Amino acid sequence: MSDPITPLGGRAVFDGKTFSVRVERFAHDDGEEVEREVVRRQDAAAIVAYDEQNVWLVRQPREAILQHTLELPAGKLDVEGESPLQTAQRELGEEIGKSAQHWQPVISYFSSSGYSDEEVHIFAATGLRDVDADSDPGERIEIVPWPLADLDAAIEACQDAKTVIGLQWLAAARRTP
Amino acid sequence: MSDPITPLGGRAVFDGKTFSVRVERFAHDDGEEVEREVVRRQDAAAIVAYDEQNVWLVRQPREAILQHTLELPAGKLDVEGESPLQTAQRELGEEIGKSAQHWQPVISYFSSSGYSDEEVHIFAATGLRDVDADSDPGERIEIVPWPLADLDAAIEACQDAKTVIGLQWLAAARRTP
Repeated sequence: MSDPITPLGGRAVFDGKTFSVRVERFAHDDGEEVEREVVRRQDAAAIVAYDEQNVWLVRQPREAILQHTLELPAGKLDVEGESPLQTAQRELGEEIGKSAQHWQPVISYFSSSGYSDEEVHIFAATGLRDVDADSDPGERIEIVPWPLADLDAAIEACQDAKTVIGLQWLAAARRTP
Repeated sequence: MSDPITPLGGRAVFDGKTFSVRVERFAHDDGEEVEREVVRRQDAAAIVAYDEQNVWLVRQPREAILQHTLELPAGKLDVEGESPLQTAQRELGEEIGKSAQHWQPVISYFSSSGYSDEEVHIFAATGLRDVDADSDPGERIEIVPWPLADLDAAIEACQDAKTVIGLQWLAAARRTP
Protein backbone atom coordinates (compact mmCIF):
# COMPACT_ATOMS: atom_id res chain seq x y z
CA MET A 1 0.00 0.00 0.00
CA SER A 2 2.87 2.32 0.81
CA ASP A 3 6.18 2.92 -0.88
CA PRO A 4 9.21 1.33 0.70
CA ILE A 5 11.64 3.50 2.66
CA THR A 6 15.28 2.63 2.04
CA PRO A 7 17.90 3.40 4.72
CA LEU A 8 21.07 4.89 3.19
CA GLY A 9 23.20 4.93 6.32
CA GLY A 10 24.24 7.69 8.65
CA ARG A 11 26.41 8.65 11.56
CA ALA A 12 26.22 8.36 15.33
CA VAL A 13 26.12 11.71 17.12
CA PHE A 14 25.53 10.47 20.69
CA ASP A 15 26.04 7.08 22.25
CA GLY A 16 24.49 7.08 25.72
CA LYS A 17 23.66 4.60 28.43
CA THR A 18 19.93 4.50 27.72
CA PHE A 19 19.70 5.58 24.08
CA SER A 20 21.78 6.67 21.13
CA VAL A 21 21.19 9.32 18.49
CA ARG A 22 21.98 9.01 14.81
CA VAL A 23 21.62 11.34 11.85
CA GLU A 24 20.50 9.10 9.04
CA ARG A 25 19.50 9.42 5.38
CA PHE A 26 16.64 7.58 3.74
CA ALA A 27 15.39 7.28 0.15
CA HIS A 28 11.77 7.23 -0.86
CA ASP A 29 10.52 5.25 -3.83
CA ASP A 30 10.46 8.30 -6.11
CA GLY A 31 14.15 8.93 -5.46
CA GLU A 32 13.81 11.78 -2.98
CA GLU A 33 16.28 11.55 -0.12
CA VAL A 34 15.64 12.89 3.36
CA GLU A 35 17.77 13.29 6.48
CA ARG A 36 16.37 12.46 9.91
CA GLU A 37 17.67 12.79 13.47
CA VAL A 38 16.71 9.53 15.14
CA VAL A 39 16.77 8.29 18.73
CA ARG A 40 17.55 4.56 18.93
CA ARG A 41 16.31 3.11 22.18
CA GLN A 42 15.47 -0.29 23.58
CA ASP A 43 11.82 -1.23 23.38
CA ALA A 44 9.77 -1.58 26.54
CA ALA A 45 7.05 -3.76 28.02
CA ALA A 46 4.23 -2.57 30.28
CA ILE A 47 1.57 -4.39 32.26
CA VAL A 48 -2.13 -3.74 32.93
CA ALA A 49 -2.29 -5.91 36.06
CA TYR A 50 -5.69 -6.11 37.73
CA ASP A 51 -7.78 -8.20 40.08
CA GLU A 52 -11.42 -7.93 41.21
CA GLN A 53 -10.82 -4.66 43.07
CA ASN A 54 -7.81 -2.82 41.70
CA VAL A 55 -5.55 -2.09 38.80
CA TRP A 56 -1.97 -2.04 40.08
CA LEU A 57 -0.11 1.15 39.20
CA VAL A 58 3.15 2.74 40.31
CA ARG A 59 4.16 6.31 41.02
CA GLN A 60 7.76 7.17 40.26
CA PRO A 61 10.02 10.16 39.63
CA ARG A 62 10.53 11.19 36.01
CA GLU A 63 13.40 13.61 36.22
CA ALA A 64 13.13 14.64 32.54
CA ILE A 65 9.83 16.38 33.30
CA LEU A 66 10.50 17.17 37.01
CA GLN A 67 7.41 15.23 38.03
CA HIS A 68 6.33 12.04 39.75
CA THR A 69 3.96 10.26 37.39
CA LEU A 70 1.29 7.59 37.78
CA GLU A 71 2.14 4.73 35.43
CA LEU A 72 1.65 1.11 34.52
CA PRO A 73 4.47 -1.11 35.81
CA ALA A 74 6.97 -1.26 32.94
CA GLY A 75 10.57 -1.74 31.98
CA LYS A 76 12.99 -1.73 29.10
CA LEU A 77 13.83 -4.90 27.17
CA ASP A 78 17.36 -4.71 28.55
CA VAL A 79 18.00 -8.40 29.27
CA GLU A 80 19.63 -10.23 26.36
CA GLY A 81 17.34 -12.78 24.76
CA GLU A 82 14.25 -11.82 26.75
CA SER A 83 10.96 -11.50 24.86
CA PRO A 84 8.56 -8.61 25.55
CA LEU A 85 6.31 -11.00 27.50
CA GLN A 86 9.23 -12.24 29.61
CA THR A 87 10.23 -8.65 30.36
CA ALA A 88 6.65 -7.89 31.41
CA GLN A 89 6.62 -10.92 33.69
CA ARG A 90 9.95 -9.95 35.28
CA GLU A 91 8.93 -6.31 35.77
CA LEU A 92 5.62 -7.25 37.39
CA GLY A 93 7.61 -9.07 40.07
CA GLU A 94 10.29 -6.39 40.44
CA GLU A 95 7.99 -3.37 40.53
CA ILE A 96 4.92 -4.57 42.41
CA GLY A 97 5.94 -7.97 43.81
CA LYS A 98 3.37 -10.04 41.94
CA SER A 99 3.13 -12.82 39.41
CA ALA A 100 0.15 -13.51 37.15
CA GLN A 101 -1.50 -16.71 35.94
CA HIS A 102 -2.96 -15.23 32.76
CA TRP A 103 -1.25 -13.00 30.23
CA GLN A 104 -2.80 -11.40 27.15
CA PRO A 105 -1.17 -9.09 24.59
CA VAL A 106 -3.07 -5.79 24.47
CA ILE A 107 -1.29 -3.60 21.92
CA SER A 108 2.16 -2.60 20.71
CA TYR A 109 2.74 1.02 19.77
CA PHE A 110 5.51 3.46 18.90
CA SER A 111 5.97 6.27 21.45
CA SER A 112 6.78 9.01 18.96
CA SER A 113 7.97 7.68 15.62
CA GLY A 114 8.69 11.11 14.19
CA TYR A 115 12.06 10.97 15.97
CA SER A 116 12.34 7.74 18.01
CA ASP A 117 12.19 4.02 17.26
CA GLU A 118 10.98 3.11 20.78
CA GLU A 119 8.17 0.55 20.69
CA VAL A 120 6.15 -0.36 23.79
CA HIS A 121 4.41 -3.71 24.21
CA ILE A 122 1.46 -3.72 26.62
CA PHE A 123 0.14 -6.91 28.22
CA ALA A 124 -2.83 -7.57 30.48
CA ALA A 125 -2.11 -9.72 33.53
CA THR A 126 -4.74 -11.39 35.72
CA GLY A 127 -4.78 -14.12 38.34
CA LEU A 128 -2.33 -12.11 40.46
CA ARG A 129 -0.36 -13.63 43.34
CA ASP A 130 2.18 -12.11 45.71
CA VAL A 131 5.76 -13.22 45.13
CA ASP A 132 9.07 -12.52 46.81
CA ALA A 133 10.87 -10.65 44.10
CA ASP A 134 14.03 -8.60 44.35
CA SER A 135 13.08 -5.05 43.64
CA ASP A 136 15.63 -2.83 41.95
CA PRO A 137 17.03 -0.67 44.78
CA GLY A 138 17.79 2.13 42.32
CA GLU A 139 14.13 2.66 41.55
CA ARG A 140 11.98 4.91 43.74
CA ILE A 141 8.70 3.20 43.11
CA GLU A 142 5.53 3.65 45.12
CA ILE A 143 2.96 0.92 44.50
CA VAL A 144 -0.53 2.33 43.92
CA PRO A 145 -3.50 -0.08 43.89
CA TRP A 146 -6.18 1.96 42.09
CA PRO A 147 -9.85 0.94 42.51
CA LEU A 148 -11.38 -0.31 39.26
CA ALA A 149 -14.55 1.55 40.23
CA ASP A 150 -12.59 4.81 39.75
CA LEU A 151 -10.89 3.87 36.49
CA ASP A 152 -11.95 7.06 34.74
CA ALA A 153 -10.26 9.08 37.49
CA ALA A 154 -7.02 7.15 36.91
CA ILE A 155 -7.17 7.96 33.19
CA GLU A 156 -7.57 11.63 34.11
CA ALA A 157 -4.78 11.50 36.73
CA CYS A 158 -2.15 9.90 34.51
CA GLN A 159 -0.17 11.76 31.87
CA ASP A 160 1.90 8.91 30.52
CA ALA A 161 1.29 7.43 27.06
CA LYS A 162 1.48 3.72 27.93
CA THR A 163 -0.70 4.26 31.00
CA VAL A 164 -3.39 6.21 29.16
CA ILE A 165 -3.46 3.52 26.46
CA GLY A 166 -3.55 0.61 28.90
CA LEU A 167 -6.23 2.12 31.13
CA GLN A 168 -8.41 3.16 28.17
CA TRP A 169 -8.16 -0.44 26.94
CA LEU A 170 -9.13 -1.77 30.38
CA ALA A 171 -12.10 0.59 30.64
CA ALA A 172 -13.33 -0.55 27.22
CA ALA A 173 -12.74 -4.23 28.05
CA ARG A 174 -14.79 -3.89 31.24
CA ARG A 175 -17.67 -2.30 29.31
CA THR A 176 -17.65 -5.18 26.79
CA PRO A 177 -17.90 -8.45 28.71
CA MET B 1 2.26 13.99 47.67
CA SER B 2 5.65 13.48 46.05
CA ASP B 3 9.06 14.81 46.87
CA PRO B 4 10.32 17.66 44.73
CA ILE B 5 12.97 16.96 42.08
CA THR B 6 15.65 19.65 41.87
CA PRO B 7 17.56 20.16 38.60
CA LEU B 8 21.29 20.65 39.20
CA GLY B 9 22.30 21.52 35.65
CA GLY B 10 24.04 19.55 32.97
CA ARG B 11 25.62 19.68 29.56
CA ALA B 12 24.42 19.56 25.98
CA VAL B 13 25.66 16.54 24.04
CA PHE B 14 23.65 17.02 20.82
CA ASP B 15 21.92 20.07 19.41
CA GLY B 16 19.83 19.02 16.43
CA LYS B 17 17.20 20.52 14.17
CA THR B 18 14.26 18.68 15.76
CA PHE B 19 15.52 17.90 19.25
CA SER B 20 18.51 18.27 21.55
CA VAL B 21 20.04 15.90 24.06
CA ARG B 22 21.42 16.84 27.45
CA VAL B 23 23.04 14.86 30.25
CA GLU B 24 21.63 16.37 33.41
CA ARG B 25 21.86 15.83 37.15
CA PHE B 26 18.94 16.00 39.56
CA ALA B 27 18.63 15.87 43.34
CA HIS B 28 15.88 14.10 45.21
CA ASP B 29 14.56 15.35 48.52
CA ASP B 30 16.65 12.87 50.55
CA GLY B 31 19.84 14.21 48.97
CA GLU B 32 20.44 11.44 46.47
CA GLU B 33 21.66 12.72 43.11
CA VAL B 34 20.99 11.01 39.80
CA GLU B 35 22.18 11.56 36.24
CA ARG B 36 19.79 11.31 33.31
CA GLU B 37 20.18 11.45 29.52
CA VAL B 38 17.28 13.60 28.36
CA VAL B 39 15.83 14.45 24.95
CA ARG B 40 14.46 17.99 24.83
CA ARG B 41 11.88 18.35 22.09
CA GLN B 42 9.09 20.72 21.16
CA ASP B 43 5.67 19.62 22.29
CA ALA B 44 3.06 18.62 19.74
CA ALA B 45 -0.67 18.97 19.10
CA ALA B 46 -2.89 16.32 17.51
CA ILE B 47 -6.49 16.34 16.36
CA VAL B 48 -9.34 13.81 16.54
CA ALA B 49 -11.36 15.35 13.69
CA TYR B 50 -14.64 13.64 12.91
CA ASP B 51 -18.00 14.16 11.27
CA GLU B 52 -21.10 11.98 11.01
CA GLN B 53 -19.36 9.37 8.87
CA ASN B 54 -15.59 9.47 9.35
CA VAL B 55 -12.67 10.24 11.56
CA TRP B 56 -10.03 11.96 9.47
CA LEU B 57 -6.63 10.29 9.66
CA VAL B 58 -3.40 10.55 7.70
CA ARG B 59 -0.88 8.00 6.53
CA GLN B 60 2.70 9.20 6.34
CA PRO B 61 6.26 7.88 6.22
CA ARG B 62 8.09 7.54 9.53
CA GLU B 63 11.65 6.96 8.47
CA ALA B 64 12.85 6.19 12.02
CA ILE B 65 10.87 2.93 11.94
CA LEU B 66 10.94 2.35 8.14
CA GLN B 67 7.15 2.32 8.02
CA HIS B 68 4.19 4.36 6.84
CA THR B 69 1.88 4.79 9.81
CA LEU B 70 -1.79 5.63 10.25
CA GLU B 71 -2.02 8.67 12.52
CA LEU B 72 -4.09 11.55 13.78
CA PRO B 73 -3.25 14.82 12.01
CA ALA B 74 -0.61 16.46 14.20
CA GLY B 75 2.32 18.80 14.30
CA LYS B 76 5.00 20.26 16.51
CA LEU B 77 4.49 23.52 18.39
CA ASP B 78 7.14 25.11 16.20
CA VAL B 79 5.57 28.52 15.61
CA GLU B 80 6.65 31.13 18.16
CA GLY B 81 3.82 32.21 20.43
CA GLU B 82 1.32 29.65 19.18
CA SER B 83 -0.76 27.79 21.77
CA PRO B 84 -1.37 24.03 21.48
CA LEU B 85 -4.93 24.77 20.28
CA GLN B 86 -3.69 27.19 17.63
CA THR B 87 -1.17 24.61 16.42
CA ALA B 88 -3.94 22.02 16.20
CA GLN B 89 -6.12 24.43 14.21
CA ARG B 90 -3.25 25.23 11.82
CA GLU B 91 -2.30 21.57 11.34
CA LEU B 92 -5.90 20.53 10.63
CA GLY B 93 -5.85 22.92 7.69
CA GLU B 94 -2.36 22.04 6.49
CA GLU B 95 -2.68 18.27 6.76
CA ILE B 96 -6.26 17.54 5.74
CA GLY B 97 -7.55 20.87 4.38
CA LYS B 98 -10.28 21.40 6.94
CA SER B 99 -11.32 23.83 9.65
CA ALA B 100 -13.58 23.00 12.60
CA GLN B 101 -16.31 24.95 14.38
CA HIS B 102 -15.98 23.16 17.71
CA TRP B 103 -12.81 22.32 19.60
CA GLN B 104 -12.50 20.36 22.83
CA PRO B 105 -9.35 19.42 24.77
CA VAL B 106 -9.15 15.63 25.11
CA ILE B 107 -5.94 14.89 26.98
CA SER B 108 -2.30 15.92 27.28
CA TYR B 109 0.30 13.21 27.80
CA PHE B 110 4.06 12.65 27.82
CA SER B 111 5.28 10.33 25.05
CA SER B 112 7.99 8.60 27.08
CA SER B 113 9.05 10.58 30.12
CA GLY B 114 11.79 8.14 31.10
CA TYR B 115 14.04 9.90 28.57
CA SER B 116 12.09 12.65 26.75
CA ASP B 117 10.19 15.78 27.76
CA GLU B 118 7.89 15.67 24.71
CA GLU B 119 4.27 16.39 25.63
CA VAL B 120 1.39 15.90 23.19
CA HIS B 121 -1.89 17.80 23.43
CA ILE B 122 -4.88 16.10 21.79
CA PHE B 123 -8.01 18.01 20.79
CA ALA B 124 -11.32 16.85 19.34
CA ALA B 125 -12.60 18.86 16.38
CA THR B 126 -16.14 18.75 15.00
CA GLY B 127 -18.22 20.86 12.66
CA LEU B 128 -15.67 20.30 9.89
CA ARG B 129 -15.53 22.43 6.73
CA ASP B 130 -13.25 22.32 3.72
CA VAL B 131 -10.74 25.16 3.51
CA ASP B 132 -8.06 26.20 1.05
CA ALA B 133 -4.96 25.71 3.13
CA ASP B 134 -1.36 25.63 2.02
CA SER B 135 -0.12 22.15 2.69
CA ASP B 136 3.52 21.72 3.58
CA PRO B 137 5.13 20.45 0.35
CA GLY B 138 7.79 18.61 2.33
CA GLU B 139 5.26 16.28 3.90
CA ARG B 140 4.15 13.10 2.13
CA ILE B 141 0.72 12.87 3.64
CA GLU B 142 -2.12 10.70 2.40
CA ILE B 143 -5.52 11.72 3.81
CA VAL B 144 -7.49 8.73 5.11
CA PRO B 145 -11.17 9.23 6.00
CA TRP B 146 -11.88 6.23 8.24
CA PRO B 147 -15.51 5.14 8.78
CA LEU B 148 -16.63 5.63 12.37
CA ALA B 149 -18.50 2.33 12.06
CA ASP B 150 -15.08 0.62 11.83
CA LEU B 151 -13.39 2.52 14.65
CA ASP B 152 -12.17 -0.64 16.37
CA ALA B 153 -10.39 -1.66 13.16
CA ALA B 154 -8.63 1.71 13.09
CA ILE B 155 -7.42 1.21 16.67
CA GLU B 156 -6.05 -2.18 15.63
CA ALA B 157 -4.46 -0.80 12.46
CA CYS B 158 -2.61 2.08 14.09
CA GLN B 159 0.62 1.73 16.04
CA ASP B 160 1.14 5.32 17.06
CA ALA B 161 0.70 6.50 20.65
CA LYS B 162 -1.30 9.69 20.02
CA THR B 163 -3.53 7.88 17.54
CA VAL B 164 -4.28 4.95 19.83
CA ILE B 165 -5.10 7.40 22.63
CA GLY B 166 -7.26 9.66 20.46
CA LEU B 167 -9.21 6.83 18.85
CA GLN B 168 -9.77 4.98 22.13
CA TRP B 169 -11.10 8.26 23.55
CA LEU B 170 -13.42 8.66 20.55
CA ALA B 171 -14.69 5.07 20.85
CA ALA B 172 -15.47 5.64 24.53
CA ALA B 173 -17.11 9.02 23.85
CA ARG B 174 -19.38 7.45 21.22
CA ARG B 175 -20.45 4.74 23.69
CA THR B 176 -21.31 7.38 26.33
CA PRO B 177 -23.68 9.91 24.74
